[in-house]
Amino acid sequence: MSIHANPIRGTRDILPQEMELRDQLQEKILTIYRSHGFERIETPILENLDLLMNSDGGENLKMLFTILKRGEKLDVHENSTVKDLCDTGLRYDLTLPLSRFFANNKNSLQLPFKAIQIDNVFRAERPQKGRFRSFKQCDIDIIGEETQVAEIELIHTTAKALGEIGFKDFVVRINDRRILSSIIVSAGFKPEEVSSISIVLDKLDKIGQEGVEKELVEKGYIEKGVKDIIHSFTTLNEDNLNRVVGDETVKNSLLDVIKTARELSNGQYKILFDPTLVRGMGYYTGQIFEITYGPYGFSIAGGGRYDNMIGNISKESIPAVGFSIGFERIITILLEEQHISREINKKVAFLYQSDENFVEVMKKADELRKQGYRVTTLVAKKKMNKQINGLKDLGYSYLFVYGKDEELRKINQ
Amino acid sequence: MSIHANPIRGTRDILPQEMELRDQLQEKILTIYRSHGFERIETPILENLDLLMNSDGGENLKMLFTILKRGEKLDVHENSTVKDLCDTGLRYDLTLPLSRFFANNKNSLQLPFKAIQIDNVFRAERPQKGRFRSFKQCDIDIIGEETQVAEIELIHTTAKALGEIGFKDFVVRINDRRILSSIIVSAGFKPEEVSSISIVLDKLDKIGQEGVEKELVEKGYIEKGVKDIIHSFTTLNEDNLNRVVGDETVKNSLLDVIKTARELSNGQYKILFDPTLVRGMGYYTGQIFEITYGPYGFSIAGGGRYDNMIGNISKESIPAVGFSIGFERIITILLEEQHISREINKKVAFLYQSDENFVEVMKKADELRKQGYRVTTLVAKKKMNKQINGLKDLGYSYLFVYGKDEELRKINQ
Repeated sequence: MSIHANPIRGTRDILPQEMELRDQLQEKILTIYRSHGFERIETPILENLDLLMNSDGGENLKMLFTILKRGEKLDVHENSTVKDLCDTGLRYDLTLPLSRFFANNKNSLQLPFKAIQIDNVFRAERPQKGRFRSFKQCDIDIIGEETQVAEIELIHTTAKALGEIGFKDFVVRINDRRILSSIIVSAGFKPEEVSSISIVLDKLDKIGQEGVEKELVEKGYIEKGVKDIIHSFTTLNEDNLNRVVGDETVKNSLLDVIKTARELSNGQYKILFDPTLVRGMGYYTGQIFEITYGPYGFSIAGGGRYDNMIGNISKESIPAVGFSIGFERIITILLEEQHISREINKKVAFLYQSDENFVEVMKKADELRKQGYRVTTLVAKKKMNKQINGLKDLGYSYLFVYGKDEELRKINQ
Repeated sequence: MSIHANPIRGTRDILPQEMELRDQLQEKILTIYRSHGFERIETPILENLDLLMNSDGGENLKMLFTILKRGEKLDVHENSTVKDLCDTGLRYDLTLPLSRFFANNKNSLQLPFKAIQIDNVFRAERPQKGRFRSFKQCDIDIIGEETQVAEIELIHTTAKALGEIGFKDFVVRINDRRILSSIIVSAGFKPEEVSSISIVLDKLDKIGQEGVEKELVEKGYIEKGVKDIIHSFTTLNEDNLNRVVGDETVKNSLLDVIKTARELSNGQYKILFDPTLVRGMGYYTGQIFEITYGPYGFSIAGGGRYDNMIGNISKESIPAVGFSIGFERIITILLEEQHISREINKKVAFLYQSDENFVEVMKKADELRKQGYRVTTLVAKKKMNKQINGLKDLGYSYLFVYGKDEELRKINQ
């Protein structure tokens, strides 16, 4: 066979050490959310292609992987389109499947339904360093809670999970999409222009105030209005939020979330009002949030309220707030910061002579396993000292020579 | 939108209670194998279509899901074949990806490499009760160990894992593909006939001795030889294994595995030599095993030695033994026997008045969470007694009314 052994373009194999870290990250996240009454669900990787294509997926729809129809259903012509050839695709996110799941199972679920999903999604992105075509997302959602209790609980629980993972001094930024709209409309623009102006405002971090101003003016928005928006953006804070025209409930709810989340933070992380937070508008309808972590220039979690989306499929209006934890980004950080699983430090190389009674060997090894060690039994080689030196390099922390040692010997620090 | 909310044909949504059971099953399996030095790896769901199609996948190759090529690579003609339209497919098992993984990463792995994989595979099967197009497999493999130490460790560890899951009195059946061959060849058949005769012998459970005899004779195999095989099959046991012509090492190795595994079983489960065990020949080259559990008419785990397969991709001969645990079958049994997760019994409904200080409410709830409870905070309704009765039905085990209760109230048995 002339087959290459490497995985297909844009995918990768995960080796044991990273896999262990991934399992532990998942376990820590699940444990914290489950302690708050969130429940894990799973949906199929394959979804109806119509559902995917009619969704609010933006750029992601250009990156769909689609599955070829089979048997009689497949009818190939010169001008066959993707929709002629395929009726199924791989999911590109977990929010659309959640909406479908809720519509499909609402009679079995209690409201508010607090869901957590940790699963792979697929996008045919141009492969580049650190970006893959198959990657893990971690979405947490509260469906059916219209008050800001949902926002507070999601922020509190997510911050707790990040703390459990080992993050300190991260910053939770909070804004409300409706305040953003008010600022833009107050500056003289039309409600239907909010979305395209927001897309440019979202680049503030990357291209700065002048860049944003230049780009908006070039797009034909009047300079005076643009300057007004940027002024509001850069001077607005919790104390002068009343300056913004608009619904008092919206402002009070935002201030309440900030105040309550801050009290619950116990000084372990920062809660900030950030009027410049945009989060690529899309389906958000209310408060939005993002968590950034010190030395890294990217967010490690983000989310917001999206009250209209689930109704699209379930045919009834139902409020929802979601938070997405950047699973792959966190793994990248943990690997860079060389977080090593504690369990890997419990690896024992257990050597025995090949003529030994294997049942007794296994029983002794099983004793150590019961104590929490990870024991690999290996036949001792003739040049045992050389073998032991080799085992150190293989990451074993302890050595046990059966029939000779009474206790574990530490071989690595 | 006129989209149906149900998942596509042959797939399903997994609801919280089953999901919790699945997570616990996975965790128990991983813990036991990791304590024996096995390491979890992960490969992509998407694999090269040539690799899949050129593999030893038998019937599974007819059930491949393939991914439509994208952009310029897609060139549709009247007579386009699947291979013209697609160059990627979804994996149908975990053994082929393991072989590719090993070939791709062998420089980073130590031998023997002890791997565990728990992941979804995909087959476009005709959907039927209990059979899905996407399902979880759990494969455990030892690569690079040529002695029967690998067989013994896999049997011992797998039995331990099944015990940890809660299975008792299961039966481990062991045979050797080479003994099966010897019996067939000794009865006067040619080595190249072994495979097709074995396929019929594998039906012994279903169609009985007479059925097997009839089918073989109808296929043109001489009756005398067929009767000889069936006689050997039904009378062979550990004590008269010497009757079989063939390599003494093979027989001694089999007897050693049976004896050692039996001693390690400590009477908790049965170890049997079963000359009628066939396990659809395919890639097996040596000992084969299968675990059956009492009231259910199907095996819950099975495996064997396959010394030639990994060499196909890695271009070097390398011995391997694998065991596959029937993850979905075990979940079916656990659900039927109504195994309920212990953690679900720690669900607390925590009621508070909406005018209460939410920070204090959360702090009290967090205290309970630290004690291991799963606490869902809910605003108390005006008709609280009616609400409490409803909560019982929702599966909460405990109730806590903030500002009123000092301790948890048990509301469900």
